Amino acid sequence: MTEVSPLAPAGFPDMPAIDGVRLAAAAAGVKYRNRVDVLLAEMAPGTTAAGVFTRSLTASAPVLRCRAALADGGGIARGLVVNSGNANAFTGRAGDAAVETCVAATAALLDCPADAVFTASTGVIGEPLPAERITAVLGDLHAGLDADAWAAAAAAIMTTDTFAKGATRSVEIAGTTVTINGIAKGSGMIAPDMATMLAFLFTDAALPAAVLQDLLAPAADRSFNCITVDGDTSTSDSVMLFATGRAGNGAVTDAGDPALAAFRAALQDLMTDLAQQIVRDGEGASKFVTITVTGAEHDEAARRIGLAIANSPLVKTAIAGEDANWGRIVMAVGKAGQRADRDRLTIAMGGHAVAEMGSAVTGYDEGPVAAHMKGREIDIAVDVGVGGGRAVVWTCDLTHGYISINADYRS
Amino acid sequence: MTEVSPLAPAGFPDMPAIDGVRLAAAAAGVKYRNRVDVLLAEMAPGTTAAGVFTRSLTASAPVLRCRAALADGGGIARGLVVNSGNANAFTGRAGDAAVETCVAATAALLDCPADAVFTASTGVIGEPLPAERITAVLGDLHAGLDADAWAAAAAAIMTTDTFAKGATRSVEIAGTTVTINGIAKGSGMIAPDMATMLAFLFTDAALPAAVLQDLLAPAADRSFNCITVDGDTSTSDSVMLFATGRAGNGAVTDAGDPALAAFRAALQDLMTDLAQQIVRDGEGASKFVTITVTGAEHDEAARRIGLAIANSPLVKTAIAGEDANWGRIVMAVGKAGQRADRDRLTIAMGGHAVAEMGSAVTGYDEGPVAAHMKGREIDIAVDVGVGGGRAVVWTCDLTHGYISINADYRS
Repeated sequence: MTEVSPLAPAGFPDMPAIDGVRLAAAAAGVKYRNRVDVLLAEMAPGTTAAGVFTRSLTASAPVLRCRAALADGGGIARGLVVNSGNANAFTGRAGDAAVETCVAATAALLDCPADAVFTASTGVIGEPLPAERITAVLGDLHAGLDADAWAAAAAAIMTTDTFAKGATRSVEIAGTTVTINGIAKGSGMIAPDMATMLAFLFTDAALPAAVLQDLLAPAADRSFNCITVDGDTSTSDSVMLFATGRAGNGAVTDAGDPALAAFRAALQDLMTDLAQQIVRDGEGASKFVTITVTGAEHDEAARRIGLAIANSPLVKTAIAGEDANWGRIVMAVGKAGQRADRDRLTIAMGGHAVAEMGSAVTGYDEGPVAAHMKGREIDIAVDVGVGGGRAVVWTCDLTHGYISINADYRS
Repeated sequence: MTEVSPLAPAGFPDMPAIDGVRLAAAAAGVKYRNRVDVLLAEMAPGTTAAGVFTRSLTASAPVLRCRAALADGGGIARGLVVNSGNANAFTGRAGDAAVETCVAATAALLDCPADAVFTASTGVIGEPLPAERITAVLGDLHAGLDADAWAAAAAAIMTTDTFAKGATRSVEIAGTTVTINGIAKGSGMIAPDMATMLAFLFTDAALPAAVLQDLLAPAADRSFNCITVDGDTSTSDSVMLFATGRAGNGAVTDAGDPALAAFRAALQDLMTDLAQQIVRDGEGASKFVTITVTGAEHDEAARRIGLAIANSPLVKTAIAGEDANWGRIVMAVGKAGQRADRDRLTIAMGGHAVAEMGSAVTGYDEGPVAAHMKGREIDIAVDVGVGGGRAVVWTCDLTHGYISINADYRS
């Protein structure tokens, strides 16, 4: 059994029920026996939905299906069925058929249109999904639906994850308290747009589907699209947000409505929390790295520079080696393809400047920096000296553990 | 001492003299004592020059200087001075001054304009280059110039390389035999545009500088820009081609001249040879991987897909693990951002189809594929089914050795 990541949080959070959401998980034997590998979520009538999916051009059958269902179904949701163990990607027409089988069976159980059922799969690519093993357990799952099964739900979607990932936030919309719960998975093949990363967010807020989408997409850009473990993008990445409306807050018709300020912030905060948990479970990770880029031409340029640093194997191995090797950071800035001023570039580690205005800080005290590099949480700040663009990205180091996991595991 | 890469060629090639070129190498103590770390090359009057350099936006001082010298000096060359141990990158104004010191001293020795002297540095980033250690040995180097010192020259520019890299070709231009010799270095921070990769090519052909440049750039695109070890791009990458003219072939004024057909092919072949040697010395490499992409929208799309596969840590670790994990290849194709037809995608390993027309080849015999994956030379062929674009890229696997080298070595 794999050990839990040394960067894992103390435990799974205490997640309250979300009015209108019930969950159940079961062991269907999709790939392994006796492993909980299927999640069913039922959402109350009236639930709206939004989604952000991988930009991979070889997206999995479930991703293609979800995109179509969101477009065709008008953003309503009644069910979500997710399996681990098999990604149902690169499975051709058989893959599409397997999705249809799962969706149709779920829709029949929940007595809803097929387009109100969403689905995701994560695991091995290229093997036919044994849909019949999933449909075989749907009846039991339906009978066992439970408003408090968040930890089981988070566990059901894990693959090489070493801990289940969840987060919860409560805020007010115009005086009404609403809650957002989220679960996520992912530990390898993690990189923007997006990662083998699944995240499912549920709220009792009453929000139209179009508003949900406008809230979800930018928050994903500043959370899940700002993390990377290995620069690899999955065929299955999906982030979905479901809103049951049961909290009964007043009508909101625009994502920019000031009444949503606290909700927007809480959603961003929860998604950032989940995204960071994914990085903390990065395959082989021994250090959690926060990279703040300032002074870029614009925010997107800053994000690209941050990801170039975060994806550099040389930077990541240096961090694993506890080496404050800022030369490799300079290299990564240079390869990002974004404007940077060589003679204004400034780099700090753990808050200590190691390079300023284009060259090493002469005679800087290596002691505090070396001590910082020995810690679990590494902070790197880079100012590229050309503008006001800013971004924060998160990654982990690259260790022997990553090689061990990936030279063996067939994902 | 690091062991020689298991993928290394049997030995350094037998390199003939190039009329008009003399070389010498010495131990200047740039970073380490008693390590040969400076190369001086003298080219005869009348030598022309061309260069292709890193596109890094934090390019080193020598790269900036070479670009300017080529532009200002009209493409003439009399000297080349190269050091290992220090990249003279991110060294600010002091770095520019160090270059000027080395160039001026070399120009004085060779009695030529400063713009006829080219320079390159490779090694640690961000530390001031001790130019005085280099200039201190220039007199001895000049006194020791030798037409046969190719092996010593190739050794002088090594950093983490485990073997010296050289190649030679002889062909005719309109009935006159000409020779091309090349030396190169690089084993980490290798990725297109370009890599910590230095390559210096010398020929006795008589070719104007503009023709040389038109020959060099496309050949670099199909050789050094088609290799990757870790996706990291260096601040120092330089490929230069010098032509002494001593072979006395007839005048050629256009790179497309049919008289140059054999020369073009030989130059491409030599550069591909050197590029492959660099991959064969990839840090920690245990397998040499050739990736052929066909059916892309155009050749550049094919190259990008090939590099997405070649740079994928998941693909590279699967190869290290001798796992024919074509699902990760599908993933990499998807993230390349180029057109591909999921339902026409075909993948072969070692000449054996494992996936055809968008799904696994049912019941394919895993034996020959498994045997192929255990070898040192891995061939992957991918057809993405949308057009006639084609490219071949070369890489190596990602092993524990890469982590060991880079979590310790401060480059």
